[in-house]
Amino acid sequence: MPPVDRLRRYVGAGAEVNRAYPVRDPAGIDGYYAAMSQDLSIGSLGHCRFESPLVQRLGSVPESPGFVEPDAAVLLDDRISSLGALERIDEAPRLEVAGPRREIYFEPAATGIGIVTCGGLCPGLNNVIRGITMEAWHGYGVRRIYGIRYGLEGFIESAGHQVLELTPDIVSDIHEHGGSLLGSSRGPQDPKAIVDRLDKLGVQVLFVVGGDGSMRAALSIATEARARDRKLAVVGIPKTIDNDMRYLDKTFGFDTAVGEAVKVIRCAHAEARGAFNGIGLVKLMGRHSGFLACAATLATSHVNFCLIPEMLDNDTLGPAFLDRLKARLEDRRHAVVVIAEGTGQERLADPDVRDASGNVKLVDVGAILAERIKAYFAGKPMEVTLKYIDPSYTVRSVAACPSDSVYCWQLAADAVHAAMSGRTEMIVGRWHGRMVHVPIERAISERNRVDLESPLWLSVLETTGQPTTLR
Amino acid sequence: MPPVDRLRRYVGAGAEVNRAYPVRDPAGIDGYYAAMSQDLSIGSLGHCRFESPLVQRLGSVPESPGFVEPDAAVLLDDRISSLGALERIDEAPRLEVAGPRREIYFEPAATGIGIVTCGGLCPGLNNVIRGITMEAWHGYGVRRIYGIRYGLEGFIESAGHQVLELTPDIVSDIHEHGGSLLGSSRGPQDPKAIVDRLDKLGVQVLFVVGGDGSMRAALSIATEARARDRKLAVVGIPKTIDNDMRYLDKTFGFDTAVGEAVKVIRCAHAEARGAFNGIGLVKLMGRHSGFLACAATLATSHVNFCLIPEMLDNDTLGPAFLDRLKARLEDRRHAVVVIAEGTGQERLADPDVRDASGNVKLVDVGAILAERIKAYFAGKPMEVTLKYIDPSYTVRSVAACPSDSVYCWQLAADAVHAAMSGRTEMIVGRWHGRMVHVPIERAISERNRVDLESPLWLSVLETTGQPTTLR
Amino acid sequence: MPPVDRLRRYVGAGAEVNRAYPVRDPAGIDGYYAAMSQDLSIGSLGHCRFESPLVQRLGSVPESPGFVEPDAAVLLDDRISSLGALERIDEAPRLEVAGPRREIYFEPAATGIGIVTCGGLCPGLNNVIRGITMEAWHGYGVRRIYGIRYGLEGFIESAGHQVLELTPDIVSDIHEHGGSLLGSSRGPQDPKAIVDRLDKLGVQVLFVVGGDGSMRAALSIATEARARDRKLAVVGIPKTIDNDMRYLDKTFGFDTAVGEAVKVIRCAHAEARGAFNGIGLVKLMGRHSGFLACAATLATSHVNFCLIPEMLDNDTLGPAFLDRLKARLEDRRHAVVVIAEGTGQERLADPDVRDASGNVKLVDVGAILAERIKAYFAGKPMEVTLKYIDPSYTVRSVAACPSDSVYCWQLAADAVHAAMSGRTEMIVGRWHGRMVHVPIERAISERNRVDLESPLWLSVLETTGQPTTLR
Amino acid sequence: MPPVDRLRRYVGAGAEVNRAYPVRDPAGIDGYYAAMSQDLSIGSLGHCRFESPLVQRLGSVPESPGFVEPDAAVLLDDRISSLGALERIDEAPRLEVAGPRREIYFEPAATGIGIVTCGGLCPGLNNVIRGITMEAWHGYGVRRIYGIRYGLEGFIESAGHQVLELTPDIVSDIHEHGGSLLGSSRGPQDPKAIVDRLDKLGVQVLFVVGGDGSMRAALSIATEARARDRKLAVVGIPKTIDNDMRYLDKTFGFDTAVGEAVKVIRCAHAEARGAFNGIGLVKLMGRHSGFLACAATLATSHVNFCLIPEMLDNDTLGPAFLDRLKARLEDRRHAVVVIAEGTGQERLADPDVRDASGNVKLVDVGAILAERIKAYFAGKPMEVTLKYIDPSYTVRSVAACPSDSVYCWQLAADAVHAAMSGRTEMIVGRWHGRMVHVPIERAISERNRVDLESPLWLSVLETTGQPTTLR
Repeated sequence: MPPVDRLRRYVGAGAEVNRAYPVRDPAGIDGYYAAMSQDLSIGSLGHCRFESPLVQRLGSVPESPGFVEPDAAVLLDDRISSLGALERIDEAPRLEVAGPRREIYFEPAATGIGIVTCGGLCPGLNNVIRGITMEAWHGYGVRRIYGIRYGLEGFIESAGHQVLELTPDIVSDIHEHGGSLLGSSRGPQDPKAIVDRLDKLGVQVLFVVGGDGSMRAALSIATEARARDRKLAVVGIPKTIDNDMRYLDKTFGFDTAVGEAVKVIRCAHAEARGAFNGIGLVKLMGRHSGFLACAATLATSHVNFCLIPEMLDNDTLGPAFLDRLKARLEDRRHAVVVIAEGTGQERLADPDVRDASGNVKLVDVGAILAERIKAYFAGKPMEVTLKYIDPSYTVRSVAACPSDSVYCWQLAADAVHAAMSGRTEMIVGRWHGRMVHVPIERAISERNRVDLESPLWLSVLETTGQPTTLR
Repeated sequence: MPPVDRLRRYVGAGAEVNRAYPVRDPAGIDGYYAAMSQDLSIGSLGHCRFESPLVQRLGSVPESPGFVEPDAAVLLDDRISSLGALERIDEAPRLEVAGPRREIYFEPAATGIGIVTCGGLCPGLNNVIRGITMEAWHGYGVRRIYGIRYGLEGFIESAGHQVLELTPDIVSDIHEHGGSLLGSSRGPQDPKAIVDRLDKLGVQVLFVVGGDGSMRAALSIATEARARDRKLAVVGIPKTIDNDMRYLDKTFGFDTAVGEAVKVIRCAHAEARGAFNGIGLVKLMGRHSGFLACAATLATSHVNFCLIPEMLDNDTLGPAFLDRLKARLEDRRHAVVVIAEGTGQERLADPDVRDASGNVKLVDVGAILAERIKAYFAGKPMEVTLKYIDPSYTVRSVAACPSDSVYCWQLAADAVHAAMSGRTEMIVGRWHGRMVHVPIERAISERNRVDLESPLWLSVLETTGQPTTLR
Repeated sequence: MPPVDRLRRYVGAGAEVNRAYPVRDPAGIDGYYAAMSQDLSIGSLGHCRFESPLVQRLGSVPESPGFVEPDAAVLLDDRISSLGALERIDEAPRLEVAGPRREIYFEPAATGIGIVTCGGLCPGLNNVIRGITMEAWHGYGVRRIYGIRYGLEGFIESAGHQVLELTPDIVSDIHEHGGSLLGSSRGPQDPKAIVDRLDKLGVQVLFVVGGDGSMRAALSIATEARARDRKLAVVGIPKTIDNDMRYLDKTFGFDTAVGEAVKVIRCAHAEARGAFNGIGLVKLMGRHSGFLACAATLATSHVNFCLIPEMLDNDTLGPAFLDRLKARLEDRRHAVVVIAEGTGQERLADPDVRDASGNVKLVDVGAILAERIKAYFAGKPMEVTLKYIDPSYTVRSVAACPSDSVYCWQLAADAVHAAMSGRTEMIVGRWHGRMVHVPIERAISERNRVDLESPLWLSVLETTGQPTTLR
Repeated sequence: MPPVDRLRRYVGAGAEVNRAYPVRDPAGIDGYYAAMSQDLSIGSLGHCRFESPLVQRLGSVPESPGFVEPDAAVLLDDRISSLGALERIDEAPRLEVAGPRREIYFEPAATGIGIVTCGGLCPGLNNVIRGITMEAWHGYGVRRIYGIRYGLEGFIESAGHQVLELTPDIVSDIHEHGGSLLGSSRGPQDPKAIVDRLDKLGVQVLFVVGGDGSMRAALSIATEARARDRKLAVVGIPKTIDNDMRYLDKTFGFDTAVGEAVKVIRCAHAEARGAFNGIGLVKLMGRHSGFLACAATLATSHVNFCLIPEMLDNDTLGPAFLDRLKARLEDRRHAVVVIAEGTGQERLADPDVRDASGNVKLVDVGAILAERIKAYFAGKPMEVTLKYIDPSYTVRSVAACPSDSVYCWQLAADAVHAAMSGRTEMIVGRWHGRMVHVPIERAISERNRVDLESPLWLSVLETTGQPTTLR
């Protein structure tokens, strides 16, 4: 199988791999939004029927008490160069602005809410659970809020998990801890069985916190409910510590993960300097994208080589890299290398071996690189001391840092606002600094990846001093 | 003097205080940019004359290796509602995109660079000093980089401060520590004397890191240089821990300050819960704006009252607040109150008493509120235990957190890119997620303040449960 | 009133202030234990009556499964020079070793336990509450464990506080947070009313966590119970963030407090270096002793002057110090000063003004020193920038650090072991690295203070470079 | 080979493995010091010849300005039960007290000092380097202080490493970072070549910071110098993150390592609770002893199984453990397991395979246990989710925590005091809370190990709820 085809199978059909249509990062400036004419309007259960309880509460403020106008939207692409090409401003793709609406679709007193967290842990999960509960309870007066235990599996009666009734008292302090109060699991479940369970629970509003697969599951649940003509609002809060969600500035938990990665890189730096020809090698998360590796590299300024999955044509684990590493050691006698877990997988991983979530099972590139470095120098008159650190789960199991905590609160509150207003099959997120709505289908259509021609990557090159290509 | 006039004198001429032209926060959605037709184009020393050394270095990448197109710009306002009002897209105010240019104005080998840090400490100062030095040295090959000691005072020969020559070795690890390698001072100095000193040093590029006053000083230095027909690029990196710079998503150091404030609020929470009718009172920075207080409130979710300078018509330190506080205690037996230092100053501070930087000298509203709380409950059959915490400098003297470290690197690199390309009288900053250029004059024309009708404030109200107004 | 008499009134009758009988720190080497013949045997309710449930559980280990022999004891003073003076080793004062006994006095199933936390917060309070609950529940099978709310006030029915029933589930995670789950209050309550309440609750074992005053209260409760011939075991866990408990290596929470103080001193250092002639002034806790100030000084190595209450004959806030400070500034252009809150109080505080706990009300020496520094330099041709930081409650409201967490567990477990074995009127603590029992009466007889001739103070002098005396 | 013989080869000749003479931890209470009559007196280069510069400096204090009396010593064993067996107190083994002496052996102005750090990194190395430099420079006036680069290898001229001259300015801030300013390496070097180099450098005082092997090297250097009749003081600062140095309360860096391990265990706890039948498995350092695993277990209270090398007769990686793990999961649906790296090695490691330092090469018991857990449950109708975390170097590469910083200062200062007074072939350390001298030969004669009948292990059993034996 030719490399590009292998890669396409590896990263999924939606991803773009050829250079003619380069994948890019959010800070990129040109050619970013290739197909801007897609429909970005949000699913709706119908017209609004009730006045929001918030109107009462916030009513004392004159004029506009923070409510969002019905048609509030922002441009998807705010670059002059893109806009100049438009005939009419109406053509420009736009994203609906998130926030509370004056009128809502569900009567709070009669509404049941479900929350489920899926996939791997991520800093901020407890903040999101807490925020949804608090906003629904205090902001809208909803009194039936069900926490589904252990991911989608929690919907399946035969699995035997009890639903956890959530109240402000129960969730009050959970955001001070990592993990998920509800627990999680991987993999899909039958949408029919899920909607059956939602029926039994009397749930009209479902919040799904999870990654790509979970967003697909959310969509299938919504589809099943629509098929039954059941009014169910399904709103996703996308979760990926890799921060590779297109249409989002960043995903929650990312800042926290960077903070943890920074600590590990500092250790690798100390280890590298602690030996003559010392090498500190750190593996970080990042299945398809190197955002975490790049941000941690920029934040520490200790990294000499930052290897990421996007370096497709690069010899990231081979002689070109190893020669460079040797040159660095000869120059400074220590080196720090950061590698994202997905780097080089298009050559190394077997695209037919998959994990419980259906993702291609990655090979351990950190361990492989460590072996290759050792083998390389074993044949040379140059003794090196290699310290390999794989922080693994420690970057994702910690409690959210302050900036993530604030973001999680906004995500949770806006998810509740959106769902109570009858919106569905959408996610909430931040775009160009504002909270917006994105259709689930668009959000998961393809991943964001580090653009090798973007300011972000340029900054990495400048900080590390590594060459533009390793060939 | 009527209150509004007092306030106007207090916050400065540029600030808007009446409700007809409400001040708003960056997340606000309507009516934000009142006067959008201002000229936002950047000062320039002339046409570019040299090819950037980066071209050589990044040249191996095909196509566009991260360079910014000459006319790259983004919209100042990306809301559809604003754009709809425009006849032509050309009318829309725009900000120039930051980043490296293919052609530069100064020949690196012949260029001298000056860096000065002014005003109070802020997390990230060392990152900025380091970033400018690294980018100028490694990216452009500049070899004369002078650190001016102790703020603008460092330019004045009679003060006797030595200039510090900066090299990669000297700045290598400084970002791991708080403070400023160069030191700082407050207050203006004679622009003539400054330009004289720059002449002696052979400096063509000056970076000024500081607040409002320092940006005004930067402008006066540039003006003086222009008057002498001396080619001097003056680029500002705006610094305010209050995060109230208009035209910027956030200022550097803010995330770090929020993180420190969060720790303090957690202590106040523990103290409040540690006593029957326990009150934890925390004073945070924020002369004119409550962004720090709001963000820390959202990040902890422990705060019951968040009092900020923007609550002009509120009885923030008076009976309306005190009655609310009493009600909260009767309900839950503990309360956490956060007050930004500028709150209520329009009634309390004497606008004629000023500090070295020329700012109105604030009264200590934390201590005043503590006294008022004690006096209020002294007259009631209700014993309270008040713990007042003023973290003061500890929120600003720490090293930058990872997200601020990344931001500081970008600010530093883009400041160098801008100055080397001959741009001047401008600042760099992030706007809607992108690094941009803003004319100094516009940047300091007025402060950003928390819009009491914005999603940010709404979130604060929802998190704290405090009423929309304290009257 | 002559100074020494004033001081005696100020620090209390038990404290020794003249140099003939110098107060010393635990690390001191000569003349330490002046009156070693005091009786250090522990109060007992009678002979043991039951076999410990632990015997069953640990029975599978052969030989001695961790139980302490009945007469296990260690020397109070292990210096050869002290022992040489003894005729027989039997004369040497000794401390009973803590730990589980094979036989216990109380039948767990019939035992009720009370826990009360008194006085100011201290890191580790929740660890102690948790540890007592866990050890009593899991180790002994006690099922009635009552948390008394808000200190001794919680015993008084008219105050209206509910008792909190403690179980492993309730206390499971509380040690991850600062503060006290039970809350606290200051000041004594009527022992008769307290024993009445214990009768109603059916409590036979009472744990009092608190400072000097609370230990006196514990003693009066035990005395009242004895007068009624009621079998009540009262065991204290001494709490003082000042670490000035004689007969203890250290008090819990001290390591944590040092850790917080270190962060603040780092900030003061950054502020001091951030200005020409910059002074960072930090006030730390320490009413009568400077252990916290000394430890934080040693841990940072940034402090140039460490001023503590024990420097009685020193001019700590006067011209002798100020001249030294000026000399330091002239030499290095920045200085960090740490002052313990009790420093110089013998000259400044009014011994007749007392707080709720009956302690002399301290004047704010930090603020006074700040004013004196400003006044001193105002009259000199030398401009200084002074930053005064009072971290106040933030050093005591945080969660316990790991070493304190381990210590708190040991204190809690050994307190339960001691009480269940019928011991009473005693405290638990660590002495020369081992957990021991000390009679309450002895423990509070006098305070430990920094010996100005000890290795500890010598280290401080060497680290700071300050002179042996400021006169 | 029978297991005990295998073990003896594995842990070394000095270690005791049979139960008749149990190895015990410092907190143990009976039978601890088996052979107390060994000579613990310290090597000396001769009578003191100079008055210490400290006498001058501290002379203003009347009476005894912190100097240690010539014969100051403390008991090795302070338990009454041990002392009762003695006929005369003179028989009791004792340790010399550390600290400054009035008279010293070396004239500071003529003295050269060498510092070398060997073996793996450990938190506090930079504090020790800094402390020795500061004390020698400021306390004694020594002006030639040489940092040997990269361990003992730095002495060997053919290796080509430059010696680093140390001054207060160079070491001023290094304690704020992890690692070692000097770098390190493993393995021995020829003592003759080392003494030759010391001759060339003009070094009379050598400080060796390292583990068992380095202490042996220190001894051989001293022996070589003695053979040449060269007056060389060799003082060791023992370094082992495993904290298994007999005759020491603890080794430096241990508190810091516990703090880092605690963070990792918290992550494992979050991961375990994040899944149905979730298992968090953490591997910690500890080649021969479980002190780190035990302390981290006690500090978090999240651990359900703590497996350490001392559990010789236990089935730590086999069915007995696995059955217990299954039972725990069935009861609570999550479990946290901590395993010290040396656990079970007597059955798993090949005693003939050794690393550069000559230690038996350990197998990765964490990975092995992870595989065994997976295999065990694969055959059962019970799905588990296992998360294995190996924090590896991150627990040792960080900067020292405050309590370690204080300890390192004391170690460094007392090492300088000892060496300058002509003492040699000794180490400094804390014993029962006091700084003392121990002959190197005794210090490395055998390792300390967790006594399975000690209060420490009892606490671990109580905290985890694990059975006394896994059989």
